[in-house]
Amino acid sequence: MTDIKIYLKQKAELINTYLKNLIPKGTPKELFDAMEYSLTVGGKRIRPILIIESSKAVNPDVDIEDFIDVALSVEFIHTYSLIHDDLPAMDDDDLRRGKPTCHKVFGEAIAILAGDGLLTYAFELISGNQKITPDKLLKVINVISNSVGVYGMVGGQAGDILENFKDIDFIHTHKTAKFISGCCQVGGILAGASKKEIENLKNYGLYIGIAFQIWDDILDEIGDEEKVGKKLHKDKEKNKITYPSVYGLDNSIKMAKDYVEKAKQEVKYLKNPDILISIADYIVSREL
Amino acid sequence: MTDIKIYLKQKAELINTYLKNLIPKGTPKELFDAMEYSLTVGGKRIRPILIIESSKAVNPDVDIEDFIDVALSVEFIHTYSLIHDDLPAMDDDDLRRGKPTCHKVFGEAIAILAGDGLLTYAFELISGNQKITPDKLLKVINVISNSVGVYGMVGGQAGDILENFKDIDFIHTHKTAKFISGCCQVGGILAGASKKEIENLKNYGLYIGIAFQIWDDILDEIGDEEKVGKKLHKDKEKNKITYPSVYGLDNSIKMAKDYVEKAKQEVKYLKNPDILISIADYIVSREL
Repeated sequence: MTDIKIYLKQKAELINTYLKNLIPKGTPKELFDAMEYSLTVGGKRIRPILIIESSKAVNPDVDIEDFIDVALSVEFIHTYSLIHDDLPAMDDDDLRRGKPTCHKVFGEAIAILAGDGLLTYAFELISGNQKITPDKLLKVINVISNSVGVYGMVGGQAGDILENFKDIDFIHTHKTAKFISGCCQVGGILAGASKKEIENLKNYGLYIGIAFQIWDDILDEIGDEEKVGKKLHKDKEKNKITYPSVYGLDNSIKMAKDYVEKAKQEVKYLKNPDILISIADYIVSREL
Repeated sequence: MTDIKIYLKQKAELINTYLKNLIPKGTPKELFDAMEYSLTVGGKRIRPILIIESSKAVNPDVDIEDFIDVALSVEFIHTYSLIHDDLPAMDDDDLRRGKPTCHKVFGEAIAILAGDGLLTYAFELISGNQKITPDKLLKVINVISNSVGVYGMVGGQAGDILENFKDIDFIHTHKTAKFISGCCQVGGILAGASKKEIENLKNYGLYIGIAFQIWDDILDEIGDEEKVGKKLHKDKEKNKITYPSVYGLDNSIKMAKDYVEKAKQEVKYLKNPDILISIADYIVSREL
Protein backbone atom coordinates (compact mmCIF):
# COMPACT_ATOMS: atom_id res chain seq x y z
CA MET A 1 0.00 0.00 0.00
CA THR A 2 2.90 2.34 0.65
CA ASP A 3 3.98 1.66 -2.92
CA ILE A 4 0.90 3.22 -4.48
CA LYS A 5 1.15 6.19 -2.11
CA ILE A 6 4.72 6.82 -3.28
CA TYR A 7 3.70 6.21 -6.90
CA LEU A 8 0.87 8.77 -6.67
CA LYS A 9 3.18 11.28 -5.04
CA GLN A 10 5.72 10.93 -7.85
CA LYS A 11 3.00 11.31 -10.45
CA ALA A 12 1.70 14.43 -8.67
CA GLU A 13 5.20 15.89 -8.87
CA LEU A 14 5.31 15.11 -12.59
CA ILE A 15 1.93 16.80 -13.03
CA ASN A 16 3.24 19.86 -11.16
CA THR A 17 6.18 20.08 -13.56
CA TYR A 18 3.88 20.10 -16.57
CA LEU A 19 1.45 22.44 -14.84
CA LYS A 20 4.08 25.17 -14.45
CA ASN A 21 4.28 25.52 -18.24
CA LEU A 22 0.54 25.64 -18.73
CA ILE A 23 -0.36 28.37 -16.26
CA PRO A 24 -1.66 31.33 -18.30
CA LYS A 25 0.01 34.74 -17.92
CA GLY A 26 -1.52 38.10 -18.71
CA THR A 27 -3.35 41.25 -17.66
CA PRO A 28 -4.81 42.24 -15.21
CA LYS A 29 -2.06 40.86 -13.03
CA GLU A 30 -4.31 40.28 -9.99
CA LEU A 31 -6.53 37.90 -11.95
CA PHE A 32 -3.64 35.80 -13.24
CA ASP A 33 -1.90 35.86 -9.86
CA ALA A 34 -5.07 34.58 -8.21
CA MET A 35 -5.35 31.69 -10.68
CA GLU A 36 -1.70 30.76 -10.25
CA TYR A 37 -1.94 31.01 -6.46
CA SER A 38 -4.81 28.56 -6.29
CA LEU A 39 -3.41 26.24 -8.97
CA THR A 40 -0.10 25.88 -7.16
CA VAL A 41 -1.20 25.88 -3.51
CA GLY A 42 -0.94 22.09 -3.46
CA GLY A 43 -3.17 19.11 -4.08
CA LYS A 44 -2.90 15.45 -4.91
CA ARG A 45 -3.57 15.98 -8.64
CA ILE A 46 -5.65 12.82 -8.57
CA ARG A 47 -7.88 13.83 -11.50
CA PRO A 48 -5.10 14.30 -14.09
CA ILE A 49 -3.47 11.14 -12.73
CA LEU A 50 -6.71 9.23 -13.28
CA ILE A 51 -6.87 10.43 -16.89
CA ILE A 52 -3.31 9.24 -17.49
CA GLU A 53 -3.68 5.94 -15.64
CA SER A 54 -7.01 5.17 -17.30
CA SER A 55 -5.48 5.74 -20.70
CA LYS A 56 -2.57 3.46 -19.85
CA ALA A 57 -4.91 0.81 -18.48
CA VAL A 58 -6.46 0.57 -21.94
CA ASN A 59 -3.32 1.10 -23.99
CA PRO A 60 0.04 0.79 -22.19
CA ASP A 61 1.85 2.33 -25.18
CA VAL A 62 -0.05 5.59 -25.17
CA ASP A 63 2.15 8.72 -25.27
CA ILE A 64 0.98 11.05 -22.52
CA GLU A 65 2.86 13.95 -24.10
CA ASP A 66 0.12 13.95 -26.74
CA PHE A 67 -2.56 14.94 -24.26
CA ILE A 68 -0.88 16.29 -21.15
CA ASP A 69 -2.77 19.60 -21.64
CA VAL A 70 -6.06 17.70 -21.72
CA ALA A 71 -5.07 15.79 -18.58
CA LEU A 72 -4.09 19.03 -16.82
CA SER A 73 -7.33 20.79 -17.83
CA VAL A 74 -9.27 18.92 -15.16
CA GLU A 75 -6.96 20.34 -12.50
CA PHE A 76 -7.97 23.82 -13.70
CA ILE A 77 -11.61 22.79 -13.27
CA HIS A 78 -10.98 21.22 -9.87
CA THR A 79 -9.21 24.39 -8.73
CA TYR A 80 -12.08 26.59 -9.94
CA SER A 81 -14.53 24.44 -7.97
CA LEU A 82 -12.47 24.81 -4.79
CA ILE A 83 -12.22 28.60 -5.17
CA HIS A 84 -15.97 28.97 -5.62
CA ASP A 85 -16.77 26.43 -2.86
CA ASP A 86 -14.65 28.39 -0.40
CA LEU A 87 -16.44 31.72 -1.06
CA PRO A 88 -18.24 33.39 1.88
CA ALA A 89 -21.63 32.79 0.20
CA MET A 90 -20.80 29.08 -0.15
CA ASP A 91 -18.76 27.13 2.44
CA ASP A 92 -17.07 30.29 3.76
CA ASP A 93 -13.64 28.76 4.32
CA ASP A 94 -10.63 30.87 5.26
CA LEU A 95 -8.06 28.14 4.79
CA ARG A 96 -7.45 25.53 2.09
CA ARG A 97 -4.51 23.15 2.47
CA GLY A 98 -3.30 25.26 5.38
CA LYS A 99 -3.07 28.43 3.31
CA PRO A 100 -5.48 31.39 3.03
CA THR A 101 -8.20 30.75 0.46
CA CYS A 102 -8.22 32.67 -2.82
CA HIS A 103 -10.81 35.26 -1.73
CA LYS A 104 -8.90 35.86 1.52
CA VAL A 105 -5.81 36.84 -0.48
CA PHE A 106 -7.30 38.50 -3.57
CA GLY A 107 -10.81 39.52 -2.49
CA GLU A 108 -14.13 38.00 -3.42
CA ALA A 109 -14.57 39.62 -6.83
CA ILE A 110 -11.21 38.45 -8.16
CA ALA A 111 -11.77 35.01 -6.62
CA ILE A 112 -15.09 34.63 -8.44
CA LEU A 113 -13.44 35.73 -11.71
CA ALA A 114 -10.38 33.53 -11.14
CA GLY A 115 -12.75 30.57 -10.80
CA ASP A 116 -14.67 31.58 -13.93
CA GLY A 117 -11.38 32.03 -15.76
CA LEU A 118 -9.97 28.64 -14.72
CA LEU A 119 -13.14 26.82 -15.77
CA THR A 120 -13.20 28.55 -19.15
CA TYR A 121 -9.47 28.05 -19.69
CA ALA A 122 -9.89 24.30 -19.26
CA PHE A 123 -12.01 24.23 -22.43
CA GLU A 124 -9.53 26.50 -24.20
CA LEU A 125 -6.76 24.04 -23.31
CA ILE A 126 -8.63 20.96 -24.53
CA SER A 127 -9.90 22.56 -27.73
CA GLY A 128 -6.40 23.89 -28.46
CA ASN A 129 -4.73 20.47 -28.39
CA GLN A 130 -3.17 19.72 -31.78
CA LYS A 131 -2.27 16.04 -31.42
CA ILE A 132 -5.51 14.26 -30.60
CA THR A 133 -8.18 14.01 -33.31
CA PRO A 134 -11.09 16.51 -33.17
CA ASP A 135 -13.73 13.79 -32.73
CA LYS A 136 -11.97 12.48 -29.61
CA LEU A 137 -11.41 15.97 -28.19
CA LEU A 138 -15.07 16.82 -28.75
CA LYS A 139 -16.12 13.69 -26.85
CA VAL A 140 -13.72 14.64 -24.06
CA ILE A 141 -15.31 18.10 -23.82
CA ASN A 142 -18.77 16.58 -23.79
CA VAL A 143 -17.92 14.12 -21.01
CA ILE A 144 -16.15 16.73 -18.88
CA SER A 145 -18.75 19.49 -19.30
CA ASN A 146 -21.46 16.99 -18.40
CA SER A 147 -19.62 15.64 -15.36
CA VAL A 148 -18.76 19.03 -13.85
CA GLY A 149 -21.92 20.90 -14.84
CA VAL A 150 -25.52 21.03 -13.66
CA TYR A 151 -25.88 17.27 -14.15
CA GLY A 152 -22.67 16.67 -12.22
CA MET A 153 -20.49 18.67 -9.85
CA VAL A 154 -22.42 21.97 -9.93
CA GLY A 155 -25.67 20.10 -9.24
CA GLY A 156 -24.03 18.23 -6.36
CA GLN A 157 -22.62 21.41 -4.86
CA ALA A 158 -26.08 23.03 -5.08
CA GLY A 159 -27.55 20.05 -3.21
CA ASP A 160 -24.77 20.30 -0.64
CA ILE A 161 -25.43 23.96 0.21
CA LEU A 162 -29.25 23.80 0.15
CA GLU A 163 -30.35 23.16 3.72
CA ASN A 164 -33.57 21.45 2.74
CA PHE A 165 -31.81 19.05 0.36
CA LYS A 166 -31.16 15.80 2.19
CA ASP A 167 -30.25 13.23 -0.47
CA ILE A 168 -26.71 12.25 0.52
CA ASP A 169 -26.36 9.74 -2.33
CA PHE A 170 -27.27 12.41 -4.88
CA ILE A 171 -24.86 14.90 -3.33
CA HIS A 172 -21.86 12.55 -3.21
CA THR A 173 -22.48 11.05 -6.63
CA HIS A 174 -22.83 14.45 -8.25
CA LYS A 175 -20.40 16.55 -6.25
CA THR A 176 -17.45 14.17 -6.42
CA ALA A 177 -17.99 10.88 -8.19
CA LYS A 178 -19.24 12.08 -11.58
CA PHE A 179 -16.16 14.23 -12.14
CA ILE A 180 -13.84 11.38 -11.10
CA SER A 181 -15.80 9.10 -13.42
CA GLY A 182 -15.53 11.68 -16.19
CA CYS A 183 -11.73 11.74 -15.82
CA CYS A 184 -11.55 7.95 -16.15
CA GLN A 185 -13.74 8.04 -19.26
CA VAL A 186 -11.57 10.77 -20.74
CA GLY A 187 -8.49 8.58 -20.30
CA GLY A 188 -10.29 5.82 -22.16
CA ILE A 189 -11.43 8.10 -24.98
CA LEU A 190 -7.90 9.47 -25.46
CA ALA A 191 -6.44 5.97 -25.60
CA GLY A 192 -9.00 4.81 -28.17
CA ALA A 193 -10.89 2.50 -25.79
CA SER A 194 -13.90 0.49 -26.98
CA LYS A 195 -17.43 1.43 -25.89
CA LYS A 196 -17.34 -1.42 -23.40
CA GLU A 197 -14.00 -0.29 -21.96
CA ILE A 198 -15.21 3.29 -21.62
CA GLU A 199 -18.31 2.00 -19.81
CA ASN A 200 -16.02 0.02 -17.45
CA LEU A 201 -13.90 3.10 -16.76
CA LYS A 202 -17.01 5.22 -16.24
CA ASN A 203 -18.33 2.78 -13.61
CA TYR A 204 -14.92 2.35 -12.01
CA GLY A 205 -14.64 6.12 -11.59
CA LEU A 206 -18.15 6.44 -10.22
CA TYR A 207 -17.53 3.71 -7.64
CA ILE A 208 -14.13 4.93 -6.45
CA GLY A 209 -15.53 8.47 -6.39
CA ILE A 210 -18.36 7.46 -4.08
CA ALA A 211 -16.01 5.31 -1.95
CA PHE A 212 -13.62 8.25 -1.68
CA GLN A 213 -16.35 10.61 -0.54
CA ILE A 214 -17.74 8.12 2.00
CA TRP A 215 -14.24 7.57 3.38
CA ASP A 216 -13.74 11.32 3.60
CA ASP A 217 -16.95 11.60 5.63
CA ILE A 218 -15.71 8.82 7.91
CA LEU A 219 -12.29 10.45 8.30
CA ASP A 220 -13.97 13.74 9.11
CA GLU A 221 -16.03 12.09 11.82
CA ILE A 222 -13.56 9.76 13.54
CA GLY A 223 -10.13 10.44 12.04
CA ASP A 224 -7.06 11.65 13.93
CA GLU A 225 -6.19 15.16 12.71
CA GLU A 226 -2.47 14.51 12.96
CA LYS A 227 -2.58 11.27 10.98
CA VAL A 228 -5.00 12.60 8.35
CA GLY A 229 -3.05 15.85 8.09
CA LYS A 230 -5.97 18.26 7.88
CA LYS A 231 -8.62 19.91 10.00
CA LEU A 232 -11.44 17.46 10.73
CA HIS A 233 -14.96 17.53 12.20
CA LYS A 234 -15.89 20.27 9.78
CA ASP A 235 -19.06 18.52 8.60
CA LYS A 236 -20.53 18.51 12.10
CA GLU A 237 -19.59 22.15 12.64
CA LYS A 238 -21.35 23.08 9.42
CA ASN A 239 -24.24 20.73 10.14
CA LYS A 240 -23.65 18.91 6.86
CA ILE A 241 -25.35 15.66 6.00
CA THR A 242 -22.78 12.81 5.79
CA TYR A 243 -22.73 9.06 5.17
CA PRO A 244 -22.05 8.15 8.82
CA SER A 245 -24.87 10.47 9.94
CA VAL A 246 -27.33 8.78 7.57
CA TYR A 247 -26.16 5.14 7.45
CA GLY A 248 -24.14 4.81 10.66
CA LEU A 249 -20.39 4.40 10.94
CA ASP A 250 -20.03 0.62 10.51
CA ASN A 251 -22.39 0.54 7.57
CA SER A 252 -20.54 3.42 5.92
CA ILE A 253 -17.20 1.61 6.22
CA LYS A 254 -18.74 -1.49 4.69
CA MET A 255 -20.36 0.51 1.87
CA ALA A 256 -17.08 2.23 0.98
CA LYS A 257 -15.28 -1.14 0.84
CA ASP A 258 -18.06 -2.65 -1.26
CA TYR A 259 -17.82 0.20 -3.77
CA VAL A 260 -14.06 -0.37 -4.03
CA GLU A 261 -14.64 -4.05 -4.79
CA LYS A 262 -17.21 -3.17 -7.46
CA ALA A 263 -14.75 -0.67 -8.96
CA LYS A 264 -12.03 -3.33 -9.17
CA GLN A 265 -14.40 -5.76 -10.88
CA GLU A 266 -15.07 -3.18 -13.60
CA VAL A 267 -11.45 -2.78 -14.67
CA LYS A 268 -9.86 -6.15 -14.00
CA TYR A 269 -10.18 -7.30 -17.63
CA LEU A 270 -8.59 -4.18 -19.11
CA LYS A 271 -5.12 -4.68 -20.63
CA ASN A 272 -3.19 -3.10 -17.80
CA PRO A 273 -5.42 -2.58 -14.75
CA ASP A 274 -2.89 -2.86 -11.90
CA ILE A 275 -2.51 0.82 -11.05
CA LEU A 276 -6.26 1.48 -11.21
CA ILE A 277 -6.81 -1.45 -8.86
CA SER A 278 -4.15 -0.17 -6.45
CA ILE A 279 -5.72 3.30 -6.51
CA ALA A 280 -9.11 1.78 -5.64
CA ASP A 281 -7.63 -0.18 -2.74
CA TYR A 282 -5.73 2.87 -1.53
CA ILE A 283 -8.93 4.88 -1.04
CA VAL A 284 -10.23 2.72 1.79
CA SER A 285 -6.80 2.09 3.27
CA ARG A 286 -6.27 5.70 4.30
CA GLU A 287 -5.70 5.70 8.04
CA LEU A 288 -8.66 6.50 10.24
CA MET B 1 -33.23 52.23 -39.39
CA THR B 2 -36.56 51.20 -37.91
CA ASP B 3 -36.44 48.19 -40.24
CA ILE B 4 -33.38 46.67 -38.63
CA LYS B 5 -34.85 47.33 -35.17
CA ILE B 6 -37.98 45.36 -36.13
CA TYR B 7 -35.86 42.68 -37.80
CA LEU B 8 -33.73 42.21 -34.68
CA LYS B 9 -36.82 42.06 -32.50
CA GLN B 10 -38.33 39.33 -34.66
CA LYS B 11 -35.08 37.38 -34.58
CA ALA B 12 -34.94 37.73 -30.79
CA GLU B 13 -38.45 36.24 -30.60
CA LEU B 14 -37.33 33.34 -32.80
CA ILE B 15 -34.32 32.79 -30.52
CA ASN B 16 -36.65 32.79 -27.50
CA THR B 17 -38.77 30.06 -29.11
CA TYR B 18 -35.72 27.85 -29.63
CA LEU B 19 -34.36 28.72 -26.19
CA LYS B 20 -37.43 27.33 -24.42
CA ASN B 21 -36.61 23.84 -25.69
CA LEU B 22 -32.95 24.04 -24.71
CA ILE B 23 -33.32 25.09 -21.07
CA PRO B 24 -32.04 22.19 -18.94
CA LYS B 25 -34.34 20.65 -16.32
CA GLY B 26 -33.27 18.69 -13.25
CA THR B 27 -32.42 18.49 -9.56
CA PRO B 28 -31.95 20.44 -7.28
CA LYS B 29 -34.93 22.48 -8.44
CA GLU B 30 -33.59 25.79 -7.07
CA LEU B 31 -30.49 25.58 -9.28
CA PHE B 32 -32.45 24.90 -12.45
CA ASP B 33 -35.08 27.49 -11.56
CA ALA B 34 -32.35 30.10 -11.09
CA MET B 35 -30.84 29.32 -14.51
CA GLU B 36 -34.24 29.47 -16.21
CA TYR B 37 -35.16 32.69 -14.40
CA SER B 38 -32.06 34.48 -15.66
CA LEU B 39 -32.18 32.97 -19.14
CA THR B 40 -35.76 34.11 -19.69
CA VAL B 41 -35.78 37.48 -17.91
CA GLY B 42 -35.35 39.21 -21.27
CA GLY B 43 -32.53 40.43 -23.45
CA LYS B 44 -31.90 41.37 -27.04
CA ARG B 45 -30.28 37.99 -27.89
CA ILE B 46 -27.78 39.89 -30.01
CA ARG B 47 -25.03 37.26 -29.63
CA PRO B 48 -26.96 34.30 -31.07
CA ILE B 49 -28.32 36.64 -33.74
CA LEU B 50 -24.76 37.63 -34.69
CA ILE B 51 -23.77 33.96 -35.04
CA ILE B 52 -26.72 33.34 -37.34
CA GLU B 53 -26.31 36.54 -39.37
CA SER B 54 -22.56 36.04 -39.72
CA SER B 55 -23.12 32.53 -41.04
CA LYS B 56 -25.69 33.81 -43.53
CA ALA B 57 -23.40 36.64 -44.61
CA VAL B 58 -20.90 34.02 -45.73
CA ASN B 59 -23.35 31.43 -47.01
CA PRO B 60 -26.98 32.54 -47.53
CA ASP B 61 -28.10 28.89 -47.93
CA VAL B 62 -26.89 27.74 -44.53
CA ASP B 63 -29.50 25.83 -42.49
CA ILE B 64 -29.62 27.36 -39.01
CA GLU B 65 -31.46 24.30 -37.67
CA ASP B 66 -28.12 22.50 -37.94
CA PHE B 67 -26.49 24.70 -35.30
CA ILE B 68 -29.23 26.47 -33.38
CA ASP B 69 -27.91 24.86 -30.14
CA VAL B 70 -24.45 26.27 -30.87
CA ALA B 71 -25.94 29.71 -31.58
CA LEU B 72 -27.95 29.57 -28.34
CA SER B 73 -24.96 28.46 -26.27
CA VAL B 74 -23.56 32.00 -26.27
CA GLU B 75 -26.76 33.25 -24.65
CA PHE B 76 -26.09 30.79 -21.80
CA ILE B 77 -22.61 32.29 -21.47
CA HIS B 78 -23.90 35.86 -21.66
CA THR B 79 -26.49 35.09 -18.96
CA TYR B 80 -23.81 33.53 -16.70
CA SER B 81 -21.70 36.66 -17.07
CA LEU B 82 -24.62 38.91 -16.07
CA ILE B 83 -25.44 36.78 -13.00
CA HIS B 84 -21.83 36.89 -11.78
CA ASP B 85 -21.43 40.60 -12.65
CA ASP B 86 -24.50 41.46 -10.57
CA LEU B 87 -23.23 39.69 -7.42
CA PRO B 88 -22.68 41.79 -4.28
CA ALA B 89 -18.91 41.23 -4.48
CA MET B 90 -18.90 42.48 -8.09
CA ASP B 91 -21.22 45.26 -9.34
CA ASP B 92 -23.78 44.65 -6.56
CA ASP B 93 -26.89 45.22 -8.66
CA ASP B 94 -30.38 44.52 -7.33
CA LEU B 95 -32.15 44.92 -10.64
CA ARG B 96 -31.47 43.65 -14.15
CA ARG B 97 -33.91 44.53 -16.93
CA GLY B 98 -36.27 45.89 -14.30
CA LYS B 99 -36.46 42.59 -12.41
CA PRO B 100 -34.65 41.42 -9.27
CA THR B 101 -31.23 39.98 -10.05
CA CYS B 102 -30.61 36.23 -9.68
CA HIS B 103 -28.96 36.45 -6.26
CA LYS B 104 -31.81 38.66 -4.98
CA VAL B 105 -34.30 35.92 -5.83
CA PHE B 106 -32.30 32.74 -5.19
CA GLY B 107 -29.52 33.84 -2.85
CA GLU B 108 -25.84 34.33 -3.56
CA ALA B 109 -24.75 30.70 -3.39
CA ILE B 110 -27.30 29.47 -5.92
CA ALA B 111 -26.60 32.49 -8.13
CA ILE B 112 -22.88 31.67 -8.22
CA LEU B 113 -23.68 28.04 -9.05
CA ALA B 114 -26.32 28.98 -11.63
CA GLY B 115 -23.67 31.06 -13.38
CA ASP B 116 -21.14 28.23 -13.19
CA GLY B 117 -23.78 25.84 -14.49
CA LEU B 118 -24.79 28.04 -17.43
CA LEU B 119 -21.18 28.54 -18.50
CA THR B 120 -20.45 24.82 -18.34
CA TYR B 121 -23.71 23.90 -20.07
CA ALA B 122 -22.77 26.07 -23.03
CA PHE B 123 -19.83 23.73 -23.74
CA GLU B 124 -22.06 20.70 -23.20
CA LEU B 125 -24.48 22.09 -25.80
CA ILE B 126 -21.81 22.80 -28.40
CA SER B 127 -19.97 19.50 -27.93
CA GLY B 128 -23.29 17.62 -28.07
CA ASN B 129 -24.26 18.96 -31.51
CA GLN B 130 -24.61 16.06 -33.96
CA LYS B 131 -24.89 17.89 -37.29
CA ILE B 132 -21.76 20.01 -37.56
CA THR B 133 -18.42 18.26 -38.08
CA PRO B 134 -16.19 17.76 -35.00
CA ASP B 135 -13.34 19.86 -36.42
CA LYS B 136 -15.66 22.87 -36.83
CA LEU B 137 -17.23 22.41 -33.39
CA LEU B 138 -13.79 22.19 -31.82
CA LYS B 139 -12.78 25.46 -33.49
CA VAL B 140 -16.02 27.02 -32.23
CA ILE B 141 -15.22 25.93 -28.67
CA ASN B 142 -11.70 27.29 -28.98
CA VAL B 143 -12.86 30.68 -30.25
CA ILE B 144 -15.62 31.01 -27.65
CA SER B 145 -13.55 29.85 -24.66
CA ASN B 146 -10.82 32.26 -25.69
CA SER B 147 -13.18 35.20 -26.19
CA VAL B 148 -15.04 34.80 -22.89
CA GLY B 149 -12.11 33.64 -20.74
CA VAL B 150 -9.12 35.27 -19.12
CA TYR B 151 -7.94 36.64 -22.47
CA GLY B 152 -11.42 38.01 -23.15
CA MET B 153 -14.51 38.76 -21.09
CA VAL B 154 -13.27 37.52 -17.70
CA GLY B 155 -10.08 39.57 -18.11
CA GLY B 156 -12.12 42.64 -19.06
CA GLN B 157 -14.45 42.23 -16.12
CA ALA B 158 -11.44 41.92 -13.79
CA GLY B 159 -10.05 45.17 -15.21
CA ASP B 160 -13.45 46.80 -14.76
CA ILE B 161 -13.74 45.97 -11.06
CA LEU B 162 -10.11 46.68 -10.12
CA GLU B 163 -10.00 50.29 -8.92
CA ASN B 164 -6.36 50.81 -9.85
CA PHE B 165 -6.90 49.50 -13.41
CA LYS B 166 -7.46 52.47 -15.69
CA ASP B 167 -7.06 51.17 -19.26
CA ILE B 168 -10.51 51.86 -20.73
CA ASP B 169 -9.56 50.46 -24.16
CA PHE B 170 -8.45 47.18 -22.60
CA ILE B 171 -11.61 46.94 -20.50
CA HIS B 172 -14.05 47.59 -23.38
CA THR B 173 -12.20 45.41 -25.86
CA HIS B 174 -12.00 42.51 -23.45
CA LYS B 175 -15.25 42.84 -21.53
CA THR B 176 -17.56 43.25 -24.53
CA ALA B 177 -15.94 43.32 -27.94
CA LYS B 178 -13.99 40.05 -27.86
CA PHE B 179 -17.11 38.02 -27.12
CA ILE B 180 -19.09 39.82 -29.87
CA SER B 181 -16.14 39.19 -32.19
CA GLY B 182 -16.08 35.54 -31.12
CA CYS B 183 -19.76 35.16 -32.05
CA CYS B 184 -19.14 36.59 -35.52
CA GLN B 185 -16.19 34.23 -36.04
CA VAL B 186 -18.31 31.29 -34.90
CA GLY B 187 -20.93 32.12 -37.53
CA GLY B 188 -18.20 32.10 -40.14
CA ILE B 189 -16.72 28.80 -38.95
CA LEU B 190 -20.14 27.12 -38.96
CA ALA B 191 -20.83 28.34 -42.51
CA GLY B 192 -17.48 27.11 -43.80
CA ALA B 193 -15.98 30.57 -44.29
CA SER B 194 -12.46 31.00 -45.64
CA LYS B 195 -9.63 32.17 -43.37
CA LYS B 196 -9.92 35.63 -44.88
CA GLU B 197 -13.67 35.77 -44.30
CA ILE B 198 -13.27 34.63 -40.69
CA GLU B 199 -10.66 37.36 -40.20
CA ASN B 200 -13.12 39.90 -41.63
CA LEU B 201 -15.88 38.71 -39.31
CA LYS B 202 -13.48 38.76 -36.36
CA ASN B 203 -12.57 42.39 -37.04
CA TYR B 204 -16.17 43.36 -37.77
CA GLY B 205 -17.23 41.95 -34.40
CA LEU B 206 -14.40 43.63 -32.57
CA TYR B 207 -15.22 47.03 -34.09
CA ILE B 208 -18.98 46.88 -33.54
CA GLY B 209 -18.34 45.57 -30.03
CA ILE B 210 -16.15 48.54 -29.16
CA ALA B 211 -18.58 50.94 -30.85
CA PHE B 212 -21.45 49.41 -28.90
CA GLN B 213 -19.65 49.81 -25.59
CA ILE B 214 -18.61 53.42 -26.34
CA TRP B 215 -22.22 54.24 -27.30
CA ASP B 216 -23.43 52.61 -24.09
CA ASP B 217 -21.06 54.82 -22.10
CA ILE B 218 -22.38 57.86 -23.97
CA LEU B 219 -26.00 56.84 -23.38
CA ASP B 220 -25.24 56.32 -19.72
CA GLU B 221 -23.80 59.83 -19.48
CA ILE B 222 -26.20 61.95 -21.53
CA GLY B 223 -29.13 59.69 -22.52
CA ASP B 224 -32.77 60.24 -21.61
CA GLU B 225 -33.88 57.40 -19.30
CA GLU B 226 -37.33 57.23 -20.87
CA LYS B 227 -36.06 57.03 -24.43
CA VAL B 228 -33.26 54.56 -23.62
CA GLY B 229 -35.60 52.48 -21.48
CA LYS B 230 -33.24 51.74 -18.62
CA LYS B 231 -31.66 53.30 -15.57
CA LEU B 232 -28.77 55.57 -16.57
CA HIS B 233 -25.92 57.46 -14.91
CA LYS B 234 -24.83 54.26 -13.23
CA ASP B 235 -21.20 54.61 -14.29
CA LYS B 236 -20.84 57.92 -12.49
CA GLU B 237 -22.52 56.56 -9.36
CA LYS B 238 -20.10 53.65 -9.35
CA ASN B 239 -17.16 55.86 -10.25
CA LYS B 240 -16.41 53.75 -13.31
CA ILE B 241 -14.00 54.80 -15.97
CA THR B 242 -15.82 55.46 -19.28
CA TYR B 243 -15.02 56.62 -22.81
CA PRO B 244 -16.55 60.10 -22.33
CA SER B 245 -14.65 60.52 -19.05
CA VAL B 246 -11.35 59.66 -20.75
CA TYR B 247 -11.75 61.02 -24.30
CA GLY B 248 -14.52 63.62 -23.89
CA LEU B 249 -18.06 63.36 -25.24
CA ASP B 250 -17.59 64.66 -28.80
CA ASN B 251 -14.50 62.58 -29.35
CA SER B 252 -16.29 59.49 -28.04
CA ILE B 253 -19.19 59.97 -30.46
CA LYS B 254 -16.72 60.35 -33.33
CA MET B 255 -14.76 57.27 -32.24
CA ALA B 256 -17.88 55.11 -32.06
CA LYS B 257 -18.92 56.20 -35.55
CA ASP B 258 -15.42 55.58 -36.90
CA TYR B 259 -15.45 52.04 -35.50
CA VAL B 260 -18.79 51.41 -37.18
CA GLU B 261 -17.35 52.54 -40.52
CA LYS B 262 -14.34 50.27 -40.07
CA ALA B 263 -16.66 47.39 -39.22
CA LYS B 264 -18.66 47.91 -42.39
CA GLN B 265 -15.49 47.99 -44.51
CA GLU B 266 -14.56 44.55 -43.16
CA VAL B 267 -17.71 42.78 -44.28
CA LYS B 268 -18.78 44.63 -47.41
CA TYR B 269 -17.24 42.07 -49.76
CA LEU B 270 -18.87 39.06 -48.10
CA LYS B 271 -21.58 37.33 -50.18
CA ASN B 272 -24.50 38.72 -48.22
CA PRO B 273 -23.38 41.55 -45.92
CA ASP B 274 -26.56 43.70 -45.75
CA ILE B 275 -27.82 42.67 -42.33
CA LEU B 276 -24.36 42.90 -40.73
CA ILE B 277 -24.00 46.39 -42.18
CA SER B 278 -27.43 47.43 -40.89
CA ILE B 279 -26.57 46.08 -37.43
CA ALA B 280 -23.36 48.14 -37.42
CA ASP B 281 -25.25 51.29 -38.39
CA TYR B 282 -27.93 50.60 -35.81
CA ILE B 283 -25.42 50.68 -32.94
CA VAL B 284 -24.64 54.37 -33.30
CA SER B 285 -28.18 55.35 -34.27
CA ARG B 286 -29.62 54.48 -30.87
CA GLU B 287 -31.26 57.66 -29.56
CA LEU B 288 -29.24 59.72 -27.14
